[in-house]
Amino acid sequence: MQTLLLDSEDVDENALMEDVIWAVEDAFAAYEYGNAQMPAKSYIDLPQYNGDFRSMPAYMDAGEWDAAGLKWVNVHPDNPNEYDLPTVMGTMIYSDPQTAFPLAIMDGTELTMKRTGAAAAVATDYLAVEDATSLGIVGAGVQSYTQLDAIAAVRPIEEVVVSDLDDERIKRFIDVYGDDFDVRSGSISEAGHCDVLSTVTPVTDPIVGLEDVGERTHINAMGADAEGKHELTDDLLQAARIVIDDHKQCTHSGEINVPYNDGVLTDDDIYGEIGQIVVGDKSGRDADTGVSVFDSTGLAIQDVAAAHVVYEQASSADNGTPFDLVGVHDGN
Amino acid sequence: MQTLLLDSEDVDENALMEDVIWAVEDAFAAYEYGNAQMPAKSYIDLPQYNGDFRSMPAYMDAGEWDAAGLKWVNVHPDNPNEYDLPTVMGTMIYSDPQTAFPLAIMDGTELTMKRTGAAAAVATDYLAVEDATSLGIVGAGVQSYTQLDAIAAVRPIEEVVVSDLDDERIKRFIDVYGDDFDVRSGSISEAGHCDVLSTVTPVTDPIVGLEDVGERTHINAMGADAEGKHELTDDLLQAARIVIDDHKQCTHSGEINVPYNDGVLTDDDIYGEIGQIVVGDKSGRDADTGVSVFDSTGLAIQDVAAAHVVYEQASSADNGTPFDLVGVHDGN
Repeated sequence: MQTLLLDSEDVDENALMEDVIWAVEDAFAAYEYGNAQMPAKSYIDLPQYNGDFRSMPAYMDAGEWDAAGLKWVNVHPDNPNEYDLPTVMGTMIYSDPQTAFPLAIMDGTELTMKRTGAAAAVATDYLAVEDATSLGIVGAGVQSYTQLDAIAAVRPIEEVVVSDLDDERIKRFIDVYGDDFDVRSGSISEAGHCDVLSTVTPVTDPIVGLEDVGERTHINAMGADAEGKHELTDDLLQAARIVIDDHKQCTHSGEINVPYNDGVLTDDDIYGEIGQIVVGDKSGRDADTGVSVFDSTGLAIQDVAAAHVVYEQASSADNGTPFDLVGVHDGN
Repeated sequence: MQTLLLDSEDVDENALMEDVIWAVEDAFAAYEYGNAQMPAKSYIDLPQYNGDFRSMPAYMDAGEWDAAGLKWVNVHPDNPNEYDLPTVMGTMIYSDPQTAFPLAIMDGTELTMKRTGAAAAVATDYLAVEDATSLGIVGAGVQSYTQLDAIAAVRPIEEVVVSDLDDERIKRFIDVYGDDFDVRSGSISEAGHCDVLSTVTPVTDPIVGLEDVGERTHINAMGADAEGKHELTDDLLQAARIVIDDHKQCTHSGEINVPYNDGVLTDDDIYGEIGQIVVGDKSGRDADTGVSVFDSTGLAIQDVAAAHVVYEQASSADNGTPFDLVGVHDGN
């Protein structure tokens, strides 16, 4: 038996966005139903290298399929300048839950971008206005691309407003999407007055205020991934219907972590978890909903869900590189 | 930049036993000095498949070298009968601590056997009589081979007595080692009266008593790896100088877990951790030492230490299969 090796291009090619969105939605539901296992992330902190490693094992049972695996991922902010390497690199081991055979080993960096976009799309599908045609993006880095790819799969997006301090990044984004969408550069407030806004920046001082967004804008707050980071002002969060992916992760390192730990936001200000909306325990957008915010920290079950899609698609398309890693020989 | 893929044969070939023993000894020392990070193993329990997954991330700094990585490993006891697969399979991601680049992905099953043998050798080196020439082995399964390979690297072993209920396993063991050692089948007591004894069975009722071992025999108790398992009787443990690899793991799932949790053994009965002996805080065997026991549960730092040896050796020997997993391109 062989393990399928899937490099970053294979992952890109086989992570069919609509399928990943469905799989991530299934993951949120499985988590809500108690059909998922997701031990707390383990950290290895290496201050001598200004970096850390995180291990993210998970299992989920979606009923018709289940999936297990582990993502090993790092954050080394000095990498780009000192070593010409990305800050974040990931490796995913995707295993058969029934036997534990490692079915695939795949690039976890590309996978993370896909599943993160997919999470925003799931939230957008439940929380944005039905006829949303405009998407604002604040922060045109690598994670912004899958925001548009994924959200355009759940809403008829035509107009895209991109805001970034770096003109090069905006130019690159427009080069990629200019043929398919009406894309233009704009201020944060112009981006925020779209039907949907995704914020994808690493800031620690909020840059989007209540006055910067439309009355019924749905915001995907994707940037905060560590204590101290937040992109939205307190008054915006206080006015919004706040949906989180996971209480522990969001209050520790998500968009709400700073105001929550300052006591500016309490549990009463949190509308619910995305899984509760997906399974129908709580409603998504309704007539009374004004601004909504999805606080996405990224769950390990999103990774195994996305890995499931990539592996199934790559297997049926005969993509990837089979490799006899563990030295197990069956009849084949 | 490419990630080096190392299959089970590559791991076997490049895990030079003397180097692995030194690296594992360095790992025990690093742990004792507080120069290692080893978050608690995370478990995913899948009772529906009678199996579990464990993730074992670790970092260690040996001074002249450091190493980081993660082993993803399982225990699925139905695998051999139902799926023609091993009960345990492992995959190791070996990463550069400085940048987190995944330097290698290697078979973790073979690696586990090597580092487990190496741990027994380190303990034997400090705890067995200097001129030990005989080794007893109780349980001639897959883990028994690296016991002999490793222990023969630290003591002038000539005579080997193998005890197992399964004649086939004994025959296979003798076939492999008959040319290099004076190997014979024997009773548990005959094996136990050798200078060194390694027990490598999964029993839950002890099979080796005080009367089965020599007065100065050193015992490597390798088999217990879960609550309820133990190979040595209480009176043997009570009479022995007990050295453990890690207090938490040993009292939870090591050789001493049953008597310790029954109150038959207390912390006063534990002589120390192997790391304390390696760094010289406690002495190994001395004139007063009778029977000694090493309770080995297996630490994640042993895996990264062994992976370091395998990667360095394979790189310099140009072994393995380079693969562009994460899609990072440098000047090369």
